[in-house]
Amino acid sequence: MIVQQYKEMLGAKSVIRTLSEAAAVRAKEIGPENVFDYSLGNPSVPAPPCLKEALLSLLENQDPMSLHGYSPTLGIPSVKEAIAESLNERFDMHYGPEHIFPVSAAAAAIAHALRAVSEPGDEVLTFAPFFPEYHPYVDLTGAVLKVVPADTAAFQINFEAFSRMLNEKTAAVLINTPNNPSGAVYSEETLTKLADILSARQKEYGHDIFLISDEPYREIVFDGKKQPYVSKFYANTISCYSFSKSLSLPGERIGYLAVNPACPDAATIVNMCGQISRGIGHNCPTSLMQLAVAKVLDQTADFSIYEKNRNLIYDCLTDIGFEVVKPAGTFYIFPKALEEDAVAFCQKALAYDLVLVPADTFGCPGYFRMAYCVATEKVERSLPVFRRFAREVYGK
Amino acid sequence: MIVQQYKEMLGAKSVIRTLSEAAAVRAKEIGPENVFDYSLGNPSVPAPPCLKEALLSLLENQDPMSLHGYSPTLGIPSVKEAIAESLNERFDMHYGPEHIFPVSAAAAAIAHALRAVSEPGDEVLTFAPFFPEYHPYVDLTGAVLKVVPADTAAFQINFEAFSRMLNEKTAAVLINTPNNPSGAVYSEETLTKLADILSARQKEYGHDIFLISDEPYREIVFDGKKQPYVSKFYANTISCYSFSKSLSLPGERIGYLAVNPACPDAATIVNMCGQISRGIGHNCPTSLMQLAVAKVLDQTADFSIYEKNRNLIYDCLTDIGFEVVKPAGTFYIFPKALEEDAVAFCQKALAYDLVLVPADTFGCPGYFRMAYCVATEKVERSLPVFRRFAREVYGK
Repeated sequence: MIVQQYKEMLGAKSVIRTLSEAAAVRAKEIGPENVFDYSLGNPSVPAPPCLKEALLSLLENQDPMSLHGYSPTLGIPSVKEAIAESLNERFDMHYGPEHIFPVSAAAAAIAHALRAVSEPGDEVLTFAPFFPEYHPYVDLTGAVLKVVPADTAAFQINFEAFSRMLNEKTAAVLINTPNNPSGAVYSEETLTKLADILSARQKEYGHDIFLISDEPYREIVFDGKKQPYVSKFYANTISCYSFSKSLSLPGERIGYLAVNPACPDAATIVNMCGQISRGIGHNCPTSLMQLAVAKVLDQTADFSIYEKNRNLIYDCLTDIGFEVVKPAGTFYIFPKALEEDAVAFCQKALAYDLVLVPADTFGCPGYFRMAYCVATEKVERSLPVFRRFAREVYGK
Repeated sequence: MIVQQYKEMLGAKSVIRTLSEAAAVRAKEIGPENVFDYSLGNPSVPAPPCLKEALLSLLENQDPMSLHGYSPTLGIPSVKEAIAESLNERFDMHYGPEHIFPVSAAAAAIAHALRAVSEPGDEVLTFAPFFPEYHPYVDLTGAVLKVVPADTAAFQINFEAFSRMLNEKTAAVLINTPNNPSGAVYSEETLTKLADILSARQKEYGHDIFLISDEPYREIVFDGKKQPYVSKFYANTISCYSFSKSLSLPGERIGYLAVNPACPDAATIVNMCGQISRGIGHNCPTSLMQLAVAKVLDQTADFSIYEKNRNLIYDCLTDIGFEVVKPAGTFYIFPKALEEDAVAFCQKALAYDLVLVPADTFGCPGYFRMAYCVATEKVERSLPVFRRFAREVYGK
């Protein structure tokens, strides 16, 4: 018989998908250029030219037998070595290739990390606002996702609530900085305090609590700043990285999991990932993409467009009178809606062809997300519409 | 804490890997050209030139935003359409794109299929000899793999044992034809009888029994023959296909799952796969590979080398006096060892630099597997060594 658990999931339609479908219908009516679709977190800048060069060079110069051949279960050694070296140089870490596990992007990294350190019934804590896919990622392993309420003042961490919710059943804490949907970048102070609390609780409970750090936006930080490297703050850290956003290739499913060498089980966890792969049908990311990204590890797409869009939108929204924390990175902004019910707010915005996502499923009701990975020209045209919407509907 | 289940799996070393490591050590001593390594099922013919052309053309001509962008969860529509059309034309089927789910090769296809139709505690039946990875594939879902003893006369199906082992807990039957390790190709007669039994038992038990058909060797059949298309024989069939062998690109992790449109839940199962993906971190195979294989669906690598090797080895082994069923496809041959203990037999062969795999882990003790995806020149040099080994050790 087909399995009810998955069949029943088909009924629940994602808010983002519903909105983006409504936007597509409207685009057919009035032309896509007139729909201001801020719903999807899809990179809007092309992959850097060096990626194409790397792919072409591999295809032209490497023997197809080795190029397209099986990757070892734990990843191609030269690729693991290159990733370790790049991380060590950039973040003053001490990774060896044995601490690196290439994966099919962040979803696969998190799938492996969760299975390595949590069992059915264990609790995994995350912080609102959070990426809604964390629910299926965690729930379908049998562990239980618990959401710590947001620190809406700065979208750092609500430590008071966090300390209260940590308990003996906590196997892992899942964080995402720079954050989808808030655009917040956890500070050194936040990460230090987080590590201190986790260290104390590990001791108190007599078991490990792992920090699973979901980092696809690590490179997208504005104003010349950088994301402090999470793993530096806490030994039991599993970093889950994806090149999807940094190289603008989300369809190519390539990233890695890196376990802090200071974690006593670091190399064992990577070896365990090879076993976990057998159960979930992972079997390495593609050889071609492993070899290609290894050639362009320290490159990124051009993120200046995201920063420009952030500035335009933030200035306009604050001018209108929105309550909004200035995003320090990513391509998201997370303002408070102009009425308590963000779903109603976004519904009303839709009448102005503004496609905004209410944040209820991000664990933060009353807020909405805008993904400003769109053309700057379109952002500019949307701002007067925003002003009109706020004035006509909310008297702002 | 790290999860013991996976940690404990690290202790169990694969026989194939142990042998291939011994072969690598010996290769360093006497040169790789003098080690006759028949242990690994790694394609030995290059990908066809049309694949490289397809990849280059995509990289040169397609906008990087669409080329490397997110694939929809259920696969790229044009790719699904092309796969359905190709299958319909070749096998007289009636697939629509809604019945096709692109995956990261056969391991991922099986991971999705198992989760769609079996739950923890259910039984999944397979037939010896079988690919040993079926154990982690099934065991790690919580279902239980039961192995039907081999039909050693022809390596078709031992129906007497099968009928006895089928029961109310059977959720799925997992088959692999052309077969690794036997090289057997299930006949129309075998598939008809299998379907008849399954249909009767479905009725008797009042629930579906799915046939999961693992088909990475579907195109590698010798003597101008073809593998009868499994799904034609039984409506509740989920075909798990990989291009790894047909296009010689096992590292690129690309294949698909196709559900027979005659299965009442066909489209639902594909939709469920999209949900299963969220739990196991799959999220589609790479966009580039999806688009590339869609351009070369009806092409294959040149398999004439495998057939030539099959003939050379089969003729020599039968001449020596081995009991062996002539493989009708794949790049494996599966003879009976010259003593009851195939592990001891393979150990003795190793002293002659012949790397053979005892079939205990394939569920067929007393037999051994040779993967003849090696250069024909090497096969030719190995045959006199085989003769000397059989003569000196077994007086053949």
